[in-house]
Amino acid sequence: MQKRRETVYSLGLDLGGTNVKGAVIDTEGRIISQVEEATPPGKEVKEIVVCLADMIERLASEHPEIIGVGLGSPGILDAERKIIRASPNFPSWSNVPLIELIARYIKLPLILENDANCFALAEHRWGAGRGCRHLLALTIGTGIGGGIIIDGELYRGSTGAGGELGHISIDMNGPKCSCGSYGCIERYIGSRWFVEAARQKLSDSSINSPKDVNILSSAGNHAAADFIAKQGELLGIACVSLINIFDPQAIIIGGGIAELGDPFFRGIRHSVNERSYLKLASEVKILPADLGTKAGALGAAALGFEAGRIK
Amino acid sequence: MQKRRETVYSLGLDLGGTNVKGAVIDTEGRIISQVEEATPPGKEVKEIVVCLADMIERLASEHPEIIGVGLGSPGILDAERKIIRASPNFPSWSNVPLIELIARYIKLPLILENDANCFALAEHRWGAGRGCRHLLALTIGTGIGGGIIIDGELYRGSTGAGGELGHISIDMNGPKCSCGSYGCIERYIGSRWFVEAARQKLSDSSINSPKDVNILSSAGNHAAADFIAKQGELLGIACVSLINIFDPQAIIIGGGIAELGDPFFRGIRHSVNERSYLKLASEVKILPADLGTKAGALGAAALGFEAGRIK
Repeated sequence: MQKRRETVYSLGLDLGGTNVKGAVIDTEGRIISQVEEATPPGKEVKEIVVCLADMIERLASEHPEIIGVGLGSPGILDAERKIIRASPNFPSWSNVPLIELIARYIKLPLILENDANCFALAEHRWGAGRGCRHLLALTIGTGIGGGIIIDGELYRGSTGAGGELGHISIDMNGPKCSCGSYGCIERYIGSRWFVEAARQKLSDSSINSPKDVNILSSAGNHAAADFIAKQGELLGIACVSLINIFDPQAIIIGGGIAELGDPFFRGIRHSVNERSYLKLASEVKILPADLGTKAGALGAAALGFEAGRIK
Repeated sequence: MQKRRETVYSLGLDLGGTNVKGAVIDTEGRIISQVEEATPPGKEVKEIVVCLADMIERLASEHPEIIGVGLGSPGILDAERKIIRASPNFPSWSNVPLIELIARYIKLPLILENDANCFALAEHRWGAGRGCRHLLALTIGTGIGGGIIIDGELYRGSTGAGGELGHISIDMNGPKCSCGSYGCIERYIGSRWFVEAARQKLSDSSINSPKDVNILSSAGNHAAADFIAKQGELLGIACVSLINIFDPQAIIIGGGIAELGDPFFRGIRHSVNERSYLKLASEVKILPADLGTKAGALGAAALGFEAGRIK
């Protein structure tokens, strides 16, 4: 008689500056249930903790199959991944012991991870990077988050701060970046800087988002299409360095700016083909992310299974 | 009665453009015997194979304890590390099946590895990077070789071409590099370019090597000392990107240029401290390599033990 396999689920939460997303998944990565709520506007630690704990409690009572909870958050974590040392989306936070604070309300095993790492993990397991042993993933919004998968596992660095792929400098004399360096790729492609450059280049002060440039480009505005391609070329220059360093199988690009589609990706590929070492880089796949805005919660949920099994 | 442990040795060879070095080591990394010979000047595949096979045969007959041979070579290897796809030191070589060619003469298990990877492995095991879980190593000569140690193991990339740390661009509009990209750190710090820049900056056409600049600097020439520090700062800019990507415990710098000593390392540290993200990078150790010119052969020998145990 075959033993019946017990159904287990994991809950992943994706804490963003605007929304908190939750996803309950099974071991195959299938979504059983999804929720989304506005992030408490004050962004104080206490109200965020209550918001997250409430969401966990509600979903856990609806789905008693949940064995663990993964929590993706922007920012730099400590090496044990229990504390948020600093986060661009929550500027007042400093060394917040998020896991400990939530554990006061919640009995389920909890695991914390950088949100871009969650994105990378989800795209590796169930998205555009399925089957790749070594891959890099960038998610481009206001900032650029990065994740590194090596031998199928997240690479976190010595203190948990690895994978800051947005802070590769492509021009040592370039504009100053919020990180302290100069000419970081985030300083060109992060949506705020993208918009500022587009307004200037296209002499159009009505541009408020990368999407606006995309609308112009799709309507046949050649200057807008060229601008998008040039932004892709800048990202491609960072990709060339990453390829020379990692020799990865794939680079996955996600986030709002990745929706710029073909002209953007052609720009990336142009730089990579033009500048790659011994032409090896032409073998590297450069792919748009596949899982959309739910990647963060999915990756967090993948880690929730780990938390559940550790306990 | 305690079983007597059998003494085993490994042989490591370091194939360079000028010399071939060999080292017989025990399992603790102690050197039992060393040899060095000029690389056959024609640099043809056949004469190199004969030279290497002769050296192996000779050392193996003197030391029957040798259980495997590691061979470090400059260039890009294939994923199985049996073929040298291309090598800057041997420009006529293309897809040379070096392991197969040597195995016609030699019965010992053989393993091939990129020479900079051997350098990184040796510094990790027995040199400046002892005890570091994640580290990066750069060896700076005519070109810059790089090696990545992750979780105590060499990271080789998907096709064996990973770790080309000299080909990180620090200026997308910089001078063209031999790799096809622009503004690679090798294009500034590699000894040929170092000398060219020093001649210009110091208006001294008698400078023929980085050592010459060091002699000037040590003799109290402030312009020479400043030049060395500025070259260190350029390397430091690449180190900042590497720190943001890897969050390593240490970056080890070796090769001839690392002998520039304090002013050079102060320059590196200056950039790292000025430009590092959230000041985390100040925790990263930036160290001169410890094993000198024998690091390549030692790292190759470390892999020779692996080859011996695989068989």
